[in-house]
Amino acid sequence: MHTQIGIVGAGPAGLLLSHLLHLAGIDSVVVERQSRAHVEARIRAGVLEQGTVDVLRESGVGERMLREGLVHDGIELAFRGEKHRIRFPELTDGKRITVYGQHEVVRDLIAARLAAGGPIEFETEDLSVHGVQSDRPLIRYVKGGVQHEISCDFLAGCDGFHGVCRQAIPAGLMQVFEKVYPFSWLGILADAPPTQDELIYSNHDRGFALYSMRSPEVTRLYLQCDPADDIANWPDARIWDELHQRLEGGDGWRFREGRITQKGITAMRSFVSAPMRHGRLFLAGDAAHIVPPTGAKGMNLAVADVRRLARALDTFYASGRTEALDTYSDLCLKRVWKAQRFSWWMTSMLHRVEGATPFEREIQLAELDYVTSSEAGARTIAENYVGLPFD
Amino acid sequence: MHTQIGIVGAGPAGLLLSHLLHLAGIDSVVVERQSRAHVEARIRAGVLEQGTVDVLRESGVGERMLREGLVHDGIELAFRGEKHRIRFPELTDGKRITVYGQHEVVRDLIAARLAAGGPIEFETEDLSVHGVQSDRPLIRYVKGGVQHEISCDFLAGCDGFHGVCRQAIPAGLMQVFEKVYPFSWLGILADAPPTQDELIYSNHDRGFALYSMRSPEVTRLYLQCDPADDIANWPDARIWDELHQRLEGGDGWRFREGRITQKGITAMRSFVSAPMRHGRLFLAGDAAHIVPPTGAKGMNLAVADVRRLARALDTFYASGRTEALDTYSDLCLKRVWKAQRFSWWMTSMLHRVEGATPFEREIQLAELDYVTSSEAGARTIAENYVGLPFD
Repeated sequence: MHTQIGIVGAGPAGLLLSHLLHLAGIDSVVVERQSRAHVEARIRAGVLEQGTVDVLRESGVGERMLREGLVHDGIELAFRGEKHRIRFPELTDGKRITVYGQHEVVRDLIAARLAAGGPIEFETEDLSVHGVQSDRPLIRYVKGGVQHEISCDFLAGCDGFHGVCRQAIPAGLMQVFEKVYPFSWLGILADAPPTQDELIYSNHDRGFALYSMRSPEVTRLYLQCDPADDIANWPDARIWDELHQRLEGGDGWRFREGRITQKGITAMRSFVSAPMRHGRLFLAGDAAHIVPPTGAKGMNLAVADVRRLARALDTFYASGRTEALDTYSDLCLKRVWKAQRFSWWMTSMLHRVEGATPFEREIQLAELDYVTSSEAGARTIAENYVGLPFD
Repeated sequence: MHTQIGIVGAGPAGLLLSHLLHLAGIDSVVVERQSRAHVEARIRAGVLEQGTVDVLRESGVGERMLREGLVHDGIELAFRGEKHRIRFPELTDGKRITVYGQHEVVRDLIAARLAAGGPIEFETEDLSVHGVQSDRPLIRYVKGGVQHEISCDFLAGCDGFHGVCRQAIPAGLMQVFEKVYPFSWLGILADAPPTQDELIYSNHDRGFALYSMRSPEVTRLYLQCDPADDIANWPDARIWDELHQRLEGGDGWRFREGRITQKGITAMRSFVSAPMRHGRLFLAGDAAHIVPPTGAKGMNLAVADVRRLARALDTFYASGRTEALDTYSDLCLKRVWKAQRFSWWMTSMLHRVEGATPFEREIQLAELDYVTSSEAGARTIAENYVGLPFD
């Protein structure tokens, strides 16, 4: 089988790329290791930048997002027992964020691709890519016991941090930038209507906590914990107790508990591999870069990557011009590093760091004090949180 | 001898306090270990915030500063071989900085105090303070072999980081916050007319460098060096070579060399001791807090402290009310921590850190990229550099 663009991975990056290419009249095939049910249930990020919302809406897959997504005008930063609001529209010429789970975006994109007849190969095994330096790269995989091979003009590696595509770039040609943080996030989903309209990021002596929501019925909560911790150490009562201590300040605000339907611990990492292109292989999203979740940038960066890649491929097929493909990596990385900086900064400012000196602890609080008391400071949070403009 | 306010230290803090008190009709005596010639020649900071300029002008000691000081509308941040200007007036409602050496401020203040008959005791020995918890604290010192004692209503400890006043606060009542940086500044003064109107802060792979000036004839230059380094390792030719490499980028700009008239190595430290008051002793300036010089905040913080202290003492003597004295420490420390954060941030962003990972190095450059490409980012530098408003 031959297709124009072979896409590895049916996460938001691969699916949106396939969808945008389809709108441009370019064929693609998406190949995914997991089942459709698995990827549609995979709980990940849930905050969409204004630009991400615009891309989904303008490409015709935003209908349910616009109906069900929760539009937020700000976030709250809590420290020293007080909450301070960062107002987005006032600080960013009217931009907002939309809370809508990544798996919901994935569902909408799968439905759109299948409705358009777009092939997605789920439940594949032994997935590999070949000939990325040739003009006919290949995807090979096994499905139902049968070996398959897809040849294509270009390969898009949208298969995440643990995927095979990044490995197809020789180590000697790739520069890796990485930071592993000395803390993790314990996240839960609870059947509890949110008692607060916006996210609360809390810097607390006991550790960071985040209050968020997935829908008018479901609360999403996070606690900083030790990376070596085991979820078995966290019975529901302990989780609630810790959340109450870290999130509820002196202002009388209390949140509702509810049945916990999911819990898990996630490591925190900053990671960039450069370049994002090798021969006819283009990496996008988590395959090339990981951010800690504190800035809510992961899925948004993936969307920015594939938006650029779809345009570059469209230009190439329409005119034969390769400039946009040739600058793909450098221009993506510019945005990636801006998001890396923001994510690292939010993470550094909000988490308890074991062994921090009293000076370092006061500097954290002084940063929070500055960004919540200076309009310029607040704007450096707001404009990054709602998403820097696409260039 | 008795005076209302006994002031230890004839640096900018002690001298300005004495001057402001004099204008309010409050008597003081300044006691200083060094000679007048020594303190007038002591080269320190040279950047005055808008608010510092205003205090000196409004109190009648700004005449020479206004005539000889160099008013700057911005600074340049250099990285990756390019310079980026931060424009102050556009970003801060018209505020500017004035380059005027701290020792020049000291000369002007000494002249004003002596002209007004204000006693300054230079060249004292065995200086000590006593009874800070009593209502008659004492300064004792030896001068010309004779023991002296001054009793006062209040003591002002303006005697710097190594002074005796902070030691009068019992260690158990004092909280200390400190960071010592793993690099120092090698500073030189050179008889060379500046070839650039504004300061250049350069983040370079070989280490930080700063281009600045003291007058239309004198250039002031700094190089990041190892704290264990010896000035003997730095013959003039090596200093110039290193400065050219770190400061001159690809834009063709070159600076003039000249005869080096002074060189020295200064350690970099962030330090805060709290509270800044104990009984009838009030600390101000370096006696209570040290910032690394990167943000040019040291003397400006001292001025903000003594401005507040002079007002609080004025209120006390005029009305007997102690609220302003009672809140002196907390309100000073608010400003101190804002300046500490800014100084620490500028220092972290601009210096080469031995052993930094590639990720950490890219984050530094991403921060510089952000603050020079986002108006909000630039404003967080500008508004702190020109000085946050007095409250």
